[in-house]
Amino acid sequence: MPVKWMSVLLLLQMSCYFRPGNCGKVLVWPMEFSHWLNLKIILDELAQRGHEVTVLRPASSIFVDPQKSPTLKFETFPTSLSKDDLEEFFTRFVDVWIYEIPRDTCLSYFPLLQNVFDEYSDTYQSLCKDTVTNKQLMTKLQNSKFDVLFSDAIGPCGEPTTFAETVGKAEMWLIRSYWDLEFPHPTLPNVDYVGGLHCKPAKPLPKEMEDFVQSSGEHGVVVFSLGSMVGNMTEEKANAIAWALAQIPQKVLWRFDGKTPDTLGPNTRVYNWLPQNDLLGHPKTKAFVTHGGANGLYEAIHFGIPMIGIPLFGEQCDNIAYMVAKGAAVALNIRTMSGSDLLNALKAVIDNPSYKEKAMWLSAIHHDQPIKPLDRAVFWIEFVMRHKGAKHLRPLAYNLTWYQYHSLDVIGFLLACVAAMAFFTIKSSLFIYQKFAKMGKKMKNE
Amino acid sequence: MPVKWMSVLLLLQMSCYFRPGNCGKVLVWPMEFSHWLNLKIILDELAQRGHEVTVLRPASSIFVDPQKSPTLKFETFPTSLSKDDLEEFFTRFVDVWIYEIPRDTCLSYFPLLQNVFDEYSDTYQSLCKDTVTNKQLMTKLQNSKFDVLFSDAIGPCGEPTTFAETVGKAEMWLIRSYWDLEFPHPTLPNVDYVGGLHCKPAKPLPKEMEDFVQSSGEHGVVVFSLGSMVGNMTEEKANAIAWALAQIPQKVLWRFDGKTPDTLGPNTRVYNWLPQNDLLGHPKTKAFVTHGGANGLYEAIHFGIPMIGIPLFGEQCDNIAYMVAKGAAVALNIRTMSGSDLLNALKAVIDNPSYKEKAMWLSAIHHDQPIKPLDRAVFWIEFVMRHKGAKHLRPLAYNLTWYQYHSLDVIGFLLACVAAMAFFTIKSSLFIYQKFAKMGKKMKNE
Repeated sequence: MPVKWMSVLLLLQMSCYFRPGNCGKVLVWPMEFSHWLNLKIILDELAQRGHEVTVLRPASSIFVDPQKSPTLKFETFPTSLSKDDLEEFFTRFVDVWIYEIPRDTCLSYFPLLQNVFDEYSDTYQSLCKDTVTNKQLMTKLQNSKFDVLFSDAIGPCGEPTTFAETVGKAEMWLIRSYWDLEFPHPTLPNVDYVGGLHCKPAKPLPKEMEDFVQSSGEHGVVVFSLGSMVGNMTEEKANAIAWALAQIPQKVLWRFDGKTPDTLGPNTRVYNWLPQNDLLGHPKTKAFVTHGGANGLYEAIHFGIPMIGIPLFGEQCDNIAYMVAKGAAVALNIRTMSGSDLLNALKAVIDNPSYKEKAMWLSAIHHDQPIKPLDRAVFWIEFVMRHKGAKHLRPLAYNLTWYQYHSLDVIGFLLACVAAMAFFTIKSSLFIYQKFAKMGKKMKNE
Repeated sequence: MPVKWMSVLLLLQMSCYFRPGNCGKVLVWPMEFSHWLNLKIILDELAQRGHEVTVLRPASSIFVDPQKSPTLKFETFPTSLSKDDLEEFFTRFVDVWIYEIPRDTCLSYFPLLQNVFDEYSDTYQSLCKDTVTNKQLMTKLQNSKFDVLFSDAIGPCGEPTTFAETVGKAEMWLIRSYWDLEFPHPTLPNVDYVGGLHCKPAKPLPKEMEDFVQSSGEHGVVVFSLGSMVGNMTEEKANAIAWALAQIPQKVLWRFDGKTPDTLGPNTRVYNWLPQNDLLGHPKTKAFVTHGGANGLYEAIHFGIPMIGIPLFGEQCDNIAYMVAKGAAVALNIRTMSGSDLLNALKAVIDNPSYKEKAMWLSAIHHDQPIKPLDRAVFWIEFVMRHKGAKHLRPLAYNLTWYQYHSLDVIGFLLACVAAMAFFTIKSSLFIYQKFAKMGKKMKNE
């Protein structure tokens, strides 16, 4: 299921070498957009603790920027796809998912989703080929004797292999969620839930923004952002949204880079970019309109802000459904929602105290963990380096074939035993019967 | 399975009251023998942190001794069973399990086990009745407004209820094991594995014992103990054991309180009681002969001591099987083992370095956890008090009936739909066929 491994990281143990002083060598296979922003938090922490972190960076990368990460090493390799190709692909990927895939029936959903994922798979296979066929790069990596490979599992890469094989080799899985978001379900010991690892206390806002926020008085503000990957919005949709925002007494900060809508109210300001964590941590913030990406959603949970969810693609639909079920959000459909739908949702979430209470409860349990998620993520990466893996946590089921896993070999053997027993019972009964029948005939004839 | 919940504790959220200053009121339903010794570690830590801990103590209790626990409060209630009754029952319980239940075939194993457990169940039902029918005690407890009930799940007690109902109400389960002992398997988020919470650094031995241990020279010592509940051993068995111990170059400290065996060698000393943790943590200790009770086994894991397992009852067979599979122990059968079996096992474990290596590996992963087991146990007890439960970790499956859990209602509805569709399809086909047949007949006749 693509939806599930959207938010997963995997660790593969690489070599049997771990240097003294608890400092190891980490090789990273990254992903773009919000995935990179989240991964970078862990990498910076690893570098901070003295580990040598090397990121494998495609030359066409959109988000992985060496200049913004001075503590990390980068190994940039040439790619057959250009940066424009990659950007164009991602825009199409998201646009198709948001606007073209039918959402109301499951049967039509999956074939179209398959097409998008086939294209995604081709794109990442191309990047992967550019890596593993680059002999100079491969020799350099092999000589570097890394202690661990830390990979975003959404775009895995391996020497010729299958997806299942790569996934099965992971020593440890770090999942970007927790029980404040997901419902309780069984899980394996080599899986740790580190959702919200990027959350930190709010910093002061820029002066202009702080003045605008303070001007909201007792009504407070609404923060509106559909994330870093959102595609083009129709003018009609933008106008409907702006109209709804204009009706509420709160001030609104809207991350939006299209044409300014005619219906934009004086209470709404549009921005190309928002300091989202700092805004959500601001005491004046009353509600968050979000697409339900894991990063923004966890910032809202962290600060206990109720949400209006407008999921766009990937696991965002799941995330928002969880928040609705837990009473901390109202969900809207990007394609069918009208201005008044948004207005009603805003009024409900801001005026009904139950949404705030539920959001504060999620915040409370998010903060009340034995160790912080970032510390746990780093602990397990260091553990895999220290102990050359985490074999004691890895289920032995990975070593079984599919027929062993489902006990088909045992069932087959037992069925064969039963069949053999039945065969011999029938055969011997027949033999005895015939013998008696013959005897009877003989006696009759005599 | 009785074997599994031998090592489980459960937490039930009691009231909606949690006092400021992070200090709560804990009510404890304890168990006897090693279970109490282990529970007491957690209770002492809770008291140390300022919580008020009240232990419900049957007057006939064998191990729960208020004089040895000055920081805990005790609520002793009269019981219809005397202390002698209880001791006699436990002796019989263990003796039957060790010496009478056949071990070689599963089919004969279970009915006899059922008898022992029926008697166990009657005994604990009697203690439970003495508690809940004691109006004075119940009123006092209700007025005390406890924040949490902390119970050893092996002898649960409830207001009239079923075992399944009591178990399903637990907010949090603390299991006295971890992945150094068990194999990885799926688990639920309201379960934490706190095995080895009682382990602590070794203290110096008494002078006489230290002198004896030091006299072993480079050969070192073997520690032999079959726990606090072991029944009578035949003279023949004791002689076989003593003979085997006399053959090895190590000195031996044997916890044994029967008649001194004739074959006892000069290298072996018998004791009524051993400072087990301090001995296992002694640098001279080479091997541990154990029945595989969780407490002793975790002390051996803690210090990385290879084992010879002679499991007696309960989950001890499982525990030793795990240690054998992980390469840190050799297993023997108490009923069939000869002196030379024991001698061979001792030689293998002491002379083959692989057992020590595996034991040291288990020790390494036992020590390398994000937080210590005792701190995690206390964290979850405090969490349940702070948040009036841990609802976000409790699977919703507990709220389903058995047919809902197995989706029988959904399957039934779908089958009914298919049946209805089939019925209408056949009926309408028949109707159309008859109509055409009639028409055909009519046309033929015309």
